[in-house]
Amino acid sequence: MNERNSQPTAAMIVIGDEVLSGRTREGNAWRLAGVMTEIGVSLREIRVIADDRAAIVEAVNALRARFDHVFTSGGIGPTHDDITADSIAAAFGVKIDVRDDARAILTAHYKAGELNESRLRMARIPDGATLIRNPVSQAPGFTIGNVHVMAGVPEIFAAMLEEIRPTLKGGAPLLSWSIRVEAPEGELATPLGAVAARHPDVSFGSYPFYRSVAGSTLVARAQDRSALEAAVADLRAALKGLGIERYEETPPG
Amino acid sequence: MNERNSQPTAAMIVIGDEVLSGRTREGNAWRLAGVMTEIGVSLREIRVIADDRAAIVEAVNALRARFDHVFTSGGIGPTHDDITADSIAAAFGVKIDVRDDARAILTAHYKAGELNESRLRMARIPDGATLIRNPVSQAPGFTIGNVHVMAGVPEIFAAMLEEIRPTLKGGAPLLSWSIRVEAPEGELATPLGAVAARHPDVSFGSYPFYRSVAGSTLVARAQDRSALEAAVADLRAALKGLGIERYEETPPG
Repeated sequence: MNERNSQPTAAMIVIGDEVLSGRTREGNAWRLAGVMTEIGVSLREIRVIADDRAAIVEAVNALRARFDHVFTSGGIGPTHDDITADSIAAAFGVKIDVRDDARAILTAHYKAGELNESRLRMARIPDGATLIRNPVSQAPGFTIGNVHVMAGVPEIFAAMLEEIRPTLKGGAPLLSWSIRVEAPEGELATPLGAVAARHPDVSFGSYPFYRSVAGSTLVARAQDRSALEAAVADLRAALKGLGIERYEETPPG
Repeated sequence: MNERNSQPTAAMIVIGDEVLSGRTREGNAWRLAGVMTEIGVSLREIRVIADDRAAIVEAVNALRARFDHVFTSGGIGPTHDDITADSIAAAFGVKIDVRDDARAILTAHYKAGELNESRLRMARIPDGATLIRNPVSQAPGFTIGNVHVMAGVPEIFAAMLEEIRPTLKGGAPLLSWSIRVEAPEGELATPLGAVAARHPDVSFGSYPFYRSVAGSTLVARAQDRSALEAAVADLRAALKGLGIERYEETPPG
């Protein structure tokens, strides 16, 4: 879509059998999506894959070639099923081992005797990566190339995302203007399509809801505010043409 | 993983800009994941992609070649941004047009004059597809080859999934046994890894949590109940070896 061309792009890879089995309702991708929208990065794809080395390597290599940023969550803890760091190293074709700077963070955090062999696995960092600080439980994430490798535990994922957020450069944020109409989208579709055709620099979505009344939330999105205002004025006229005068608007904040 | 080899496989494609922008927290994939686990189908990948024809064609063709079933949600309504049906037809290289059986469903549902051109788009069905009944708002989904195309509105997605559920053949369901331990996973990781190595036909996961105490939920999964019981007994012994006698178990229901 047009309006996104001037924004950097991103993809997310969620690594975790527990999401694919339905055990866990994934929330990190949703959080990332909100942050990307705020900073003006266009999130183009989310993939949820298993804790499987071949699947991780394939997804990382496919997406890092295609998008400006790739974010991963999950699989960087101390247990035998935490294979993300090693898989990322394999995807980049670099070596991985316990690294001194990461080990120093863990040594400072744990009491004597607590830093066992399993926990030390969390200091395995691929060659050439930069650490991402973890203010919650210390074990770091890392950035290698355009891939940001973060924890799956929601509190830690959120904290790591805030750590790297200042380093992520966005384009002009997408402004979004919502109109909540108590009319089924089948009634709105034809004039909405016509308005959309007249404003190719604005992206329109329609999200039906079913409560006591059938309704639709129409959303117009653009980076340029005046284009957005013109498009929404046109849309209001189209609603009026349908005899619809009652709706709720949410302009960009 | 071993235990999944005897189950059919599946992937899900969520089509929707509103998920990628963070506007909507996706729930259909989570619902599908739960149903697949219940019926013994191994969900291997979830992809969230934009309302973009090229992206839909690519994802559908990549995943239908690799998995036994592909489920899609979103983009089959009446508005200009509903491009899923046409994109699926393009992926399969078949024609698409308003089909009589689908039109008949809509004609029966709408009052005279309500079935406008936009709503009639919901009767566009690719050649060779079978309709999926929509008990909520009538406009049907469809199955073509191994791809099941369903609505994005959660109530409709759920109803369509129930419609096709009896046609989906599963393998032996994966039994899951959870043990909730008030000990950080870094303490459990070494013995857990050893138990996992002794039971290659059982899959083990560890999901840390942070409340007033640091804890971990350990999950063992297998299709074979006696293998699972033996693995869990071994795990209990390992916990005892760590001096941990307090934990909560959730055996398969």
